[in-house]
Amino acid sequence: MDIEILETIPNENNKRDYEVEITAPEFTCLCPDKRDQPDFATITITYAPHKKLIELKSLKYYLGRYRNEEIYHEEATNRILEDLLKVLKPRYIKVVGDWNIRGGIKTVVKVEYQKNER
Amino acid sequence: MDIEILETIPNENNKRDYEVEITAPEFTCLCPDKRDQPDFATITITYAPHKKLIELKSLKYYLGRYRNEEIYHEEATNRILEDLLKVLKPRYIKVVGDWNIRGGIKTVVKVEYQKNER
Amino acid sequence: MDIEILETIPNENNKRDYEVEITAPEFTCLCPDKRDQPDFATITITYAPHKKLIELKSLKYYLGRYRNEEIYHEEATNRILEDLLKVLKPRYIKVVGDWNIRGGIKTVVKVEYQKNER
Amino acid sequence: MDIEILETIPNENNKRDYEVEITAPEFTCLCPDKRDQPDFATITITYAPHKKLIELKSLKYYLGRYRNEEIYHEEATNRILEDLLKVLKPRYIKVVGDWNIRGGIKTVVKVEYQKNER
Amino acid sequence: MDIEILETIPNENNKRDYEVEITAPEFTCLCPDKRDQPDFATITITYAPHKKLIELKSLKYYLGRYRNEEIYHEEATNRILEDLLKVLKPRYIKVVGDWNIRGGIKTVVKVEYQKNER
Amino acid sequence: MDIEILETIPNENNKRDYEVEITAPEFTCLCPDKRDQPDFATITITYAPHKKLIELKSLKYYLGRYRNEEIYHEEATNRILEDLLKVLKPRYIKVVGDWNIRGGIKTVVKVEYQKNER
Amino acid sequence: MDIEILETIPNENNKRDYEVEITAPEFTCLCPDKRDQPDFATITITYAPHKKLIELKSLKYYLGRYRNEEIYHEEATNRILEDLLKVLKPRYIKVVGDWNIRGGIKTVVKVEYQKNER
Amino acid sequence: MDIEILETIPNENNKRDYEVEITAPEFTCLCPDKRDQPDFATITITYAPHKKLIELKSLKYYLGRYRNEEIYHEEATNRILEDLLKVLKPRYIKVVGDWNIRGGIKTVVKVEYQKNER
Amino acid sequence: MDIEILETIPNENNKRDYEVEITAPEFTCLCPDKRDQPDFATITITYAPHKKLIELKSLKYYLGRYRNEEIYHEEATNRILEDLLKVLKPRYIKVVGDWNIRGGIKTVVKVEYQKNER
Amino acid sequence: MDIEILETIPNENNKRDYEVEITAPEFTCLCPDKRDQPDFATITITYAPHKKLIELKSLKYYLGRYRNEEIYHEEATNRILEDLLKVLKPRYIKVVGDWNIRGGIKTVVKVEYQKNER
Repeated sequence: MDIEILETIPNENNKRDYEVEITAPEFTCLCPDKRDQPDFATITITYAPHKKLIELKSLKYYLGRYRNEEIYHEEATNRILEDLLKVLKPRYIKVVGDWNIRGGIKTVVKVEYQKNER
Repeated sequence: MDIEILETIPNENNKRDYEVEITAPEFTCLCPDKRDQPDFATITITYAPHKKLIELKSLKYYLGRYRNEEIYHEEATNRILEDLLKVLKPRYIKVVGDWNIRGGIKTVVKVEYQKNER
Repeated sequence: MDIEILETIPNENNKRDYEVEITAPEFTCLCPDKRDQPDFATITITYAPHKKLIELKSLKYYLGRYRNEEIYHEEATNRILEDLLKVLKPRYIKVVGDWNIRGGIKTVVKVEYQKNER
Repeated sequence: MDIEILETIPNENNKRDYEVEITAPEFTCLCPDKRDQPDFATITITYAPHKKLIELKSLKYYLGRYRNEEIYHEEATNRILEDLLKVLKPRYIKVVGDWNIRGGIKTVVKVEYQKNER
Repeated sequence: MDIEILETIPNENNKRDYEVEITAPEFTCLCPDKRDQPDFATITITYAPHKKLIELKSLKYYLGRYRNEEIYHEEATNRILEDLLKVLKPRYIKVVGDWNIRGGIKTVVKVEYQKNER
Repeated sequence: MDIEILETIPNENNKRDYEVEITAPEFTCLCPDKRDQPDFATITITYAPHKKLIELKSLKYYLGRYRNEEIYHEEATNRILEDLLKVLKPRYIKVVGDWNIRGGIKTVVKVEYQKNER
Repeated sequence: MDIEILETIPNENNKRDYEVEITAPEFTCLCPDKRDQPDFATITITYAPHKKLIELKSLKYYLGRYRNEEIYHEEATNRILEDLLKVLKPRYIKVVGDWNIRGGIKTVVKVEYQKNER
Repeated sequence: MDIEILETIPNENNKRDYEVEITAPEFTCLCPDKRDQPDFATITITYAPHKKLIELKSLKYYLGRYRNEEIYHEEATNRILEDLLKVLKPRYIKVVGDWNIRGGIKTVVKVEYQKNER
Repeated sequence: MDIEILETIPNENNKRDYEVEITAPEFTCLCPDKRDQPDFATITITYAPHKKLIELKSLKYYLGRYRNEEIYHEEATNRILEDLLKVLKPRYIKVVGDWNIRGGIKTVVKVEYQKNER
Repeated sequence: MDIEILETIPNENNKRDYEVEITAPEFTCLCPDKRDQPDFATITITYAPHKKLIELKSLKYYLGRYRNEEIYHEEATNRILEDLLKVLKPRYIKVVGDWNIRGGIKTVVKVEYQKNER
């Protein structure tokens, strides 16, 4: 995934340690195992911004890039966290991938990063 | 935003450290980026009053002032906190802006202030 | 408000520090500012009884006394706490007043008392 | 309200008598009586298209035009029906305005048009 | 109940046979049998206006008049219908009183009037 | 079941054909087959009164009489209808017994009576 | 499926044309196509009894017999209707099979029988 | 869209006029107007089968084919109906496309076909 | 209440400190004050078993014994805890009695026991 | 239960201590006491993976193996934890069995394992 598509805007209120929660209920990618069958998830990103805020339209395009990519649930959730970590360098970030039921089984993956000095 | 519109009433029960939670589901402003398209949010203000309580009708007029102003989600939520902080000098205050979905993405901004000696 | 209307029954299980939660969804009083217009709230009382339990029918009559009294949201919630504190002398008590929407704004007031030695 | 802002697209499936239901939960206008205080509603438009479909972005701009206009609940709901009737000439149309609570009272207005020969 | 308190406004759209539904969730009166104990209900009024619309603030004051009156569930629901019938002369009107649970039993009363020639 | 316990009050509004719906969520009786094990149901009575209204407290006592009686779901629902039919002589009456799950199976019984000339 | 397992009890109230609705949320069988993978459904049976009522425990055992049988959604729903039709000879019967999601797709099958002379 | 991907199985119960309702909450296609931005919908297909039942896995693949196709809401809903009509020749069929909110506006499209002699 | 009716089974997994939560929504007893009027509650028992598990059918019979006993809300909830404490000697136990609304007031009683060395 | 059916895939992100939550709402087994009557549950597995992730299809087959096995609620929940512990050696794991109501009583069993050095 090319992270250059992710744009940021300066956080004018960076003296306060506040929180932004973004929910994207229309995430879709392809399952590596099952002949390109699609998977669907709601991705929730919660972060405490430091110097930068994510620009929402660029985040939408970034998440849209997974549409035709083959990737596992656990891997996709971790990669979204890693990419945002590089771009935003936030005080805190959590990514939750809440994946639709497959074969009668539902999966939720939760990944979290906590900056040491916070 | 002119904060003089915000009126207060004395907190007769200021010996107790109690909490007031105010929910305003009809907040609207304009998006700076998209040719004056409107944004909608539910603003929730939770505070532990010290000497002053916010007068509710004046709060309604204050929030109504954002109706034709261009402002980002993060900025609006932070500014409401700063304005109420100046006027109320509360023991604690949190402002949550829960913004309606745009481009398939929903955003919630949470800003908090905790008086040191509380 | 005359607190003599509040009756108690002995707490036979006072060796255990347990909790009673009472919800009264039919509370109504009058608004001091708006020409006697009625206000409506759900009052929730949570307490850890010591020697006494509140008798429920007397509590109903006590809350019914606010029906034609002019009182602010914050004041009513605090007064119910103070009155029950005097009558029950509980280990802990919290009163939450969840007031109906007025002018597009909803208010919840939470007051708490914690006995030191608990 | 200038209806020229409403654009249409041809209904390629006009041999079938089918139905389109559009829900706009972010409608806001001003109350004529109360010193320009805002009103909020969810507008639901259900129509059976004949030759034309409403173009959704133009409908959004049309509804956005009410933002700073003073108008009663009943009048706004009827006017939206009349304007769409002129522009779309549908086989059937219903407009429902579901207005937020004011003074403890909620109002829903339902207006319907049925072409005779349907 | 004095019906002169009920005000009307002209129905500018009286050529269409449309519907207005008004929900008042804060209705309260007194029970005739039980030593002035209060009863609570949600009153829903649905009508097809002819020449007149009910003015909402006056309806609020009218319903508020029941606050300290002793009246049965069935009687109150019927009386609201009769009073609005006299004042509005609508094409159709239905009044539903949805009364809070008493003694483990909940009651809903539905009264309807249909003008013959509609 | 002794129906003399059921009291009525005169229907002052008997010129209108209106409806009263009574829900009793605390109905319990005993199962004939299973060594006196209790059954639980919500009983809903909908009727169009003619000359008489059911007095609610007497209905509560009547329903309470089933508490220690052995009776099948279908029989209990039918008997409540028959008893109210005798006492109220209504224009219409429906009794619905919504019985709690037993052995992974839930049962609802609906019995209706429609006066011919209505 | 052997229908002799289904027992009946006489309908003592067969002069009234009433309705019994039975919901069995714990139905499971095996999918013919997918290597004996289990399917799960909620089966709802609504019938107007004539001379006979279904005995509920025997119905539970009957439905339990599908547990290790391979059968399609449409076939299972139709067969339950046919079997109950033979045993109960009701005035009316409907069987709804509400099957759990498989491959991102949910299926509901509704089969109905209406006796002519009803 | 190539309809040969749609497979059928014989309807063994075709003497009964019954109904099958299929819900596919994971439908996605591309918006023709907005630079290939994705649209999301829940597609609900209700049909009364005649000689043929739709095979569910093939329906899943058929719906998956829209993933990277540019198509309007109204057109996609109508085309699914036309394709199933050709393949199934059912007694009745309805297709409902319930599309996710875009620009603060939600759209539902309902198309129906009723065989004459049904 | 005779606790000998309560049977236990050995806890085969007693090396792990795990939790069992039992919900009984069909609890009923009689109110001491109001001429034998019934009270209804949902009883929730949460416990961390030590050597013994409660046998569920015997618990059902034990709770059924309250059916015709006069007892206060607080007393019944405490007594269930005491009886289970004697029989199970668990590492932890909590009993919550969630009582149905009476006179417009709802009551929940929560009693907890924590073994010291846990 | 043969645990060799459980397959794993390597956890590529094992430097982060993250969480996977798997919900299987279609678990069924047989009750040891009641003549092979089926029990139904929702099994929720929450774990913090170390070197291995559970392969979801193999988990589905593993859970399916309980279908015709006689086992108590507490035993089944503990055994699923023990089996996954052996196969995954996770940093943390919790298994919750939420069992359907039987005899008016619902049971939830929660078992947890916490690696010391986490």
